[in-house]
Amino acid sequence: MSDGMNYAPKGKPQPVVNPGEFVFAAIGLDHGHIYGQCNGLVEAGATLAAVYDPDPAKVTAFVERFPGTRVARSEQEILQDASIQLVAAAAVPADRSALGNRVMQHGKDYFTDKCPFTTLDQLAETKRVVAQTGRKYAVYYSERLHNESALYAGELVHGGAIGRVLQVIGLGPHRLGAPNRPAWFFELARYGGILCDIGSHQVEQFLFYSGATDGQVLHSKVANYAHAEYPELQDFGDATIVGNNGATNYFRVDWFTPNGLSNWGDGRTIIMGTLGYIELRKYVDVTRGNGNQVYWVDQHGEHHVDVDGRIGYPFFGQLVRDCLDRTEHAMTQAHAFKAAELSLQAQAHALRIGQ
Amino acid sequence: MSDGMNYAPKGKPQPVVNPGEFVFAAIGLDHGHIYGQCNGLVEAGATLAAVYDPDPAKVTAFVERFPGTRVARSEQEILQDASIQLVAAAAVPADRSALGNRVMQHGKDYFTDKCPFTTLDQLAETKRVVAQTGRKYAVYYSERLHNESALYAGELVHGGAIGRVLQVIGLGPHRLGAPNRPAWFFELARYGGILCDIGSHQVEQFLFYSGATDGQVLHSKVANYAHAEYPELQDFGDATIVGNNGATNYFRVDWFTPNGLSNWGDGRTIIMGTLGYIELRKYVDVTRGNGNQVYWVDQHGEHHVDVDGRIGYPFFGQLVRDCLDRTEHAMTQAHAFKAAELSLQAQAHALRIGQ
Repeated sequence: MSDGMNYAPKGKPQPVVNPGEFVFAAIGLDHGHIYGQCNGLVEAGATLAAVYDPDPAKVTAFVERFPGTRVARSEQEILQDASIQLVAAAAVPADRSALGNRVMQHGKDYFTDKCPFTTLDQLAETKRVVAQTGRKYAVYYSERLHNESALYAGELVHGGAIGRVLQVIGLGPHRLGAPNRPAWFFELARYGGILCDIGSHQVEQFLFYSGATDGQVLHSKVANYAHAEYPELQDFGDATIVGNNGATNYFRVDWFTPNGLSNWGDGRTIIMGTLGYIELRKYVDVTRGNGNQVYWVDQHGEHHVDVDGRIGYPFFGQLVRDCLDRTEHAMTQAHAFKAAELSLQAQAHALRIGQ
Repeated sequence: MSDGMNYAPKGKPQPVVNPGEFVFAAIGLDHGHIYGQCNGLVEAGATLAAVYDPDPAKVTAFVERFPGTRVARSEQEILQDASIQLVAAAAVPADRSALGNRVMQHGKDYFTDKCPFTTLDQLAETKRVVAQTGRKYAVYYSERLHNESALYAGELVHGGAIGRVLQVIGLGPHRLGAPNRPAWFFELARYGGILCDIGSHQVEQFLFYSGATDGQVLHSKVANYAHAEYPELQDFGDATIVGNNGATNYFRVDWFTPNGLSNWGDGRTIIMGTLGYIELRKYVDVTRGNGNQVYWVDQHGEHHVDVDGRIGYPFFGQLVRDCLDRTEHAMTQAHAFKAAELSLQAQAHALRIGQ
């Protein structure tokens, strides 16, 4: 938990299917988010049938966490298994699109860790494969989907608590924990850049809370301020976007969580509307402990509610049902792609500053 | 207090001069900040000798607050009074520069409410007058100078508590309170625009905490999202700046403080360094009451200190001594001008969004 790489919140089991009714496998265990993805699906009643990764150590650790999972000898074994309906994956970011394309071309839905792409070309190709196959390319934007305060904020906003949303500010600091990071984490072409990678969470939240369906990146920048030993690491990035409904977004992401913080990052979301504002202290409330703290101010007063353990994670059950029913209640494909597209554009046009 | 226009914190009297040793007058009572300016000077031991404003109602209110102040019949009466060493003023923003130039040309120092200028031409002309007269054009950047959490943060930062400062984020929401605002408040040419006006506080804080002595505005925008009845009001603005030391700034200012907030604005400053970060809840800590709450996280842990009433406002005594000793301990002229220059540039180049 200390570096956020193995962030995998436990919710309450809320099965939406009977055992065996929805079967999935895991391929690509490069990022620890795979645990959060699989936890969520299992809590929703999905059956985890098989796992494949070329690294036996990763597979062993995975099977310890999910006992009874069959270990496949190859990716092909899973792709050609007609009983498997969805593949969950947290491959190296640069490999996520190609893996997803193979999965979809084998008639299965795909559920990848964010960031879903590292280049706009990958996005274009995957859009083509989605159109061709009719399969889903779902994305685990965990900083909203797997955070109860973020989910509660959605209820507040969509219930009209703060009027029309004008701006979303997101702060996404993360602990670096460099010694525990794999080599690809420091290779720009493989992780995609800080705005593409952890920035994609931020863009997704902006689109969700503001209701914008498209946007324009107005400015973005990246820096490597303090990690010359990792020349391709970007330890700081920020961006501002205007949505097609006039709402705007500013976000900052960084790898500067200090050692003294009790969690991996003091993530905040501040949603300003015409009639009030909401502040989420998502993972920690400094000097007060637990995250999932929602503060908001409206026309009537100041409010605080601790939603830790009170909301659950409905995304996973919705995703399972969407796969079975061919609906889009969990998240539309267009939304998942647009969040990626804007974060890729922010990355591509980022000014390089600092030293 | 409800709209922040009459924000005038009371500190502890800490005279740096004997009675009559430093004599000042007030001219231009258009903004309620004049009370904060005069309070601060009086607490520092300065003698408030006279007041002038063309509006008798404003003068009457002022004399009630500062009994015994002589009411001058004209601006000239004050300018030509050789016993007066400084003029404090909170004129309409567009008039502040010209008034200050007249004051300095009469051999007196000048202490104006922010924003000190509404155009870059005014700044250039006042720079010329300062060089010509050798007088001071001091600026009341109250959101740092008259806020104890902001002052305490300066001690933390300059003591090295968070390492090298990489970024300063400022949120400066203000309550509109439109019915209580004068006509000039809604006239763009007179108030100067939201980035020029309340944005100048933000730029000043960035320069102070980061130590940057110059900067470049990378992006800025303004909007009138929800006040079509005041077409020249900008109810939202933001900007990002990079300093000449590589540190960056993002700030948002707005007039959307909801009625339910217990104060006029939930001003925040978040200062991120290489070794930790500081968050100021300057005027209110939502659902917990008083402002002046300093939260910071470093390599050792999470910290919170309530500095309300514990720091005082050393700026005013320093300013009085600077005027007598011709030093620059309170604030350098270059710093006061640079904060104005960057906020004017942000305003001049702002993208207009929303509707």
